[in-house]
Amino acid sequence: MLEELKLSVYEANMELPRRGLITYTWGNVSGIDREKGLFVIKPSGVDYDKLKPEDMVVMDLDGNQVEGELNPSSDTATHLELYRAFDKIGGIVHTHSPMATSWAQAGRALPCYGTTHADYFYGEIPCARNLTQEEIDEGYEKNTGTVIIETFQGLDPMHVPAVLCKNHGPFTWGTDAANAVHNAVVLEEIAKMNLMTELLNPAVKPAPQSMQDKHFMRKHGPDAYYGQKK
Amino acid sequence: MLEELKLSVYEANMELPRRGLITYTWGNVSGIDREKGLFVIKPSGVDYDKLKPEDMVVMDLDGNQVEGELNPSSDTATHLELYRAFDKIGGIVHTHSPMATSWAQAGRALPCYGTTHADYFYGEIPCARNLTQEEIDEGYEKNTGTVIIETFQGLDPMHVPAVLCKNHGPFTWGTDAANAVHNAVVLEEIAKMNLMTELLNPAVKPAPQSMQDKHFMRKHGPDAYYGQKK
Amino acid sequence: MLEELKLSVYEANMELPRRGLITYTWGNVSGIDREKGLFVIKPSGVDYDKLKPEDMVVMDLDGNQVEGELNPSSDTATHLELYRAFDKIGGIVHTHSPMATSWAQAGRALPCYGTTHADYFYGEIPCARNLTQEEIDEGYEKNTGTVIIETFQGLDPMHVPAVLCKNHGPFTWGTDAANAVHNAVVLEEIAKMNLMTELLNPAVKPAPQSMQDKHFMRKHGPDAYYGQKK
Amino acid sequence: MLEELKLSVYEANMELPRRGLITYTWGNVSGIDREKGLFVIKPSGVDYDKLKPEDMVVMDLDGNQVEGELNPSSDTATHLELYRAFDKIGGIVHTHSPMATSWAQAGRALPCYGTTHADYFYGEIPCARNLTQEEIDEGYEKNTGTVIIETFQGLDPMHVPAVLCKNHGPFTWGTDAANAVHNAVVLEEIAKMNLMTELLNPAVKPAPQSMQDKHFMRKHGPDAYYGQKK
Repeated sequence: MLEELKLSVYEANMELPRRGLITYTWGNVSGIDREKGLFVIKPSGVDYDKLKPEDMVVMDLDGNQVEGELNPSSDTATHLELYRAFDKIGGIVHTHSPMATSWAQAGRALPCYGTTHADYFYGEIPCARNLTQEEIDEGYEKNTGTVIIETFQGLDPMHVPAVLCKNHGPFTWGTDAANAVHNAVVLEEIAKMNLMTELLNPAVKPAPQSMQDKHFMRKHGPDAYYGQKK
Repeated sequence: MLEELKLSVYEANMELPRRGLITYTWGNVSGIDREKGLFVIKPSGVDYDKLKPEDMVVMDLDGNQVEGELNPSSDTATHLELYRAFDKIGGIVHTHSPMATSWAQAGRALPCYGTTHADYFYGEIPCARNLTQEEIDEGYEKNTGTVIIETFQGLDPMHVPAVLCKNHGPFTWGTDAANAVHNAVVLEEIAKMNLMTELLNPAVKPAPQSMQDKHFMRKHGPDAYYGQKK
Repeated sequence: MLEELKLSVYEANMELPRRGLITYTWGNVSGIDREKGLFVIKPSGVDYDKLKPEDMVVMDLDGNQVEGELNPSSDTATHLELYRAFDKIGGIVHTHSPMATSWAQAGRALPCYGTTHADYFYGEIPCARNLTQEEIDEGYEKNTGTVIIETFQGLDPMHVPAVLCKNHGPFTWGTDAANAVHNAVVLEEIAKMNLMTELLNPAVKPAPQSMQDKHFMRKHGPDAYYGQKK
Repeated sequence: MLEELKLSVYEANMELPRRGLITYTWGNVSGIDREKGLFVIKPSGVDYDKLKPEDMVVMDLDGNQVEGELNPSSDTATHLELYRAFDKIGGIVHTHSPMATSWAQAGRALPCYGTTHADYFYGEIPCARNLTQEEIDEGYEKNTGTVIIETFQGLDPMHVPAVLCKNHGPFTWGTDAANAVHNAVVLEEIAKMNLMTELLNPAVKPAPQSMQDKHFMRKHGPDAYYGQKK
């Protein structure tokens, strides 16, 4: 069942260590089949070098495990909340990639300091608040998703396909699992560059809005002209 | 004698250069057989690419070399003290891994700024004080252990399986040699992230206690649910 | 047509990921045949591991695509402006290499702090200003070139073969495509070292002019004596 | 002539890119045969991947090229001065390794913040002053050596086998070419760690003298006990 999706989610998971975003098992990728209402996610705590496509776990949008013998990622409830609330996203990634996690630990949104950021993210990448004790006790992973959704009130998740969870780390998403991983790689790169930028100029301001508009739109707007015609 | 333990200690040593924690011969791993009261440790100053399982040295808990033609690690007396004082640990690692060593050189305990830390270490990782001139003269390596033990008064070494020795570098431990290396890798990663975190937010505070409890307990508590059932 | 130039521009493009200057497709290299008045440039948004020499696009100096089925790099109009204004340059590179881009995001010229810099760049590497809204609307990529040219009034582009575009990233150039890539590698290295230098000494001053003269001239002056006779 | 020395100097040169100390041709290693009064050095500006043992150039201690068809390193006169003044050194290395060069650019001596440093260098690693205009004009490379020698008045070059040349980069030396490269690797590692240390604790003080004595002496003193008996 969903063999093609499992394979693409497996491949997207394997891209994380190749891109240097992962230490040990600290991350997970999922992808969704919107028509069937099912998503596929990495099993919990399995080493990347032992992972196989058939290990992927199939979940429905009520949180039931539909297929797979292994436990799904411990963050599955977060993925579920995001798929339910953000209806255009097709894949989700969570990592503890070091530079993005450092911003999350610092409790800071990632400002847009340049075109590398604006080519992918339209405006700053927000930092979601800590969960309350009650939210942790009631359902830590589910409420991690709830707080992300709260953070995106008034924001288009397809315009800003990433969030930093305070004292935790980043989640990214995208049109599918591979695209969500792509955004995780970009996030890590700009998180690194933006720290260096602030060290070089503590008074630095975000890039001019005109420049942010131009770069986001030339790649993602209705008249996008970056890349090849499809 | 102890062929299986020698092989696992050899493998754990070889993991150090693979994980980028080691320059030249700056590190050593040991593992203990608690029933026999013997531990196995890397020989001193041997290049990792020439190291063989049979080079591992066997020591008893009185500090006698029981087997092996090479000198044991110059830090053997430190390992011995820790095995005697911390009766649940099964393996010990010492490295000069650059980020953890930088915290040790700065003389600072490593605060818990996020879940990456809390998944492995319950609370801050302490920095042990310098040895006095007398302690150095009397037995430098033995007293390095003594000062670590002093530092852990009131702390459970299995809850905080690492220490930073001031102006020196880290020791980590774990259930066995491989697990101690795992903790050394995690320590290096959080030491890097926590420096970046402070550069991004000099006024940063530790992660909320509720979050530290949640993450440590979901992996190590009686109701742990991370990973696969064993 | 221009098979040799296409091959050398292809090779120069492929050197970018090998040297760690590129994430995904974030960069482009071109090279020019001054006699024919044609330049060859990477196509837009094509993965480096799928790129082939025959994919290179041939442009004339009026901005017409003379050969090639793929769209040229979205930055082609910038390359065009530079080839027209700087008549001694034979190759151009644009990247988002992280350290140089951090200086660009900080809006700062790169000072000459040492001989590594002075061996390649004579004096500081300037940071070009932001484009105005009007310049963006009128022709973003063309005017990126115009602003670089404005920045080099009074400067010899062969003495300072690089620029940082504010909130964007670096362009470098050179005698040909390979030499322009060489300069991009050097720029990234000195951008890294100069940040570290400032962290170590916030009051640091540029290297003495006498030293800058000596190093630039022993490699590039009329009596250069570095390397082998040619 | 001197085939064995040429081979060892060649091997030592090739170790520089393997250890990540070198970009392009920015470095050189030499080794001396004290009995014959001849030293062997890398040719100038030759790519490491084209270098062959037979390319090594043989020089005498009056600065005459005794063998080899290629020009010797442009820094040969510096090596010559050091071999003449420091009669126990058997090999010399110059690099622009990024972290050590950053300290040199900052014009700062490298303090001893820990045992990694004290295991190899006894006390701080000095930063040699800039050359005067006259010294540059009279003989830049020779006087680079003269100023290093001036810097070591009262210091034993075998106790501190490294120097930082202001606004330039490091030289290291050792018992032979391989040992000099070993010291260059260590220097780069402690240069990195010491910057991080200062970022973590701007008020950090050098390691206690008792600890520096202990670590230098257990490896290099008359009663050294690190490593295996020889």
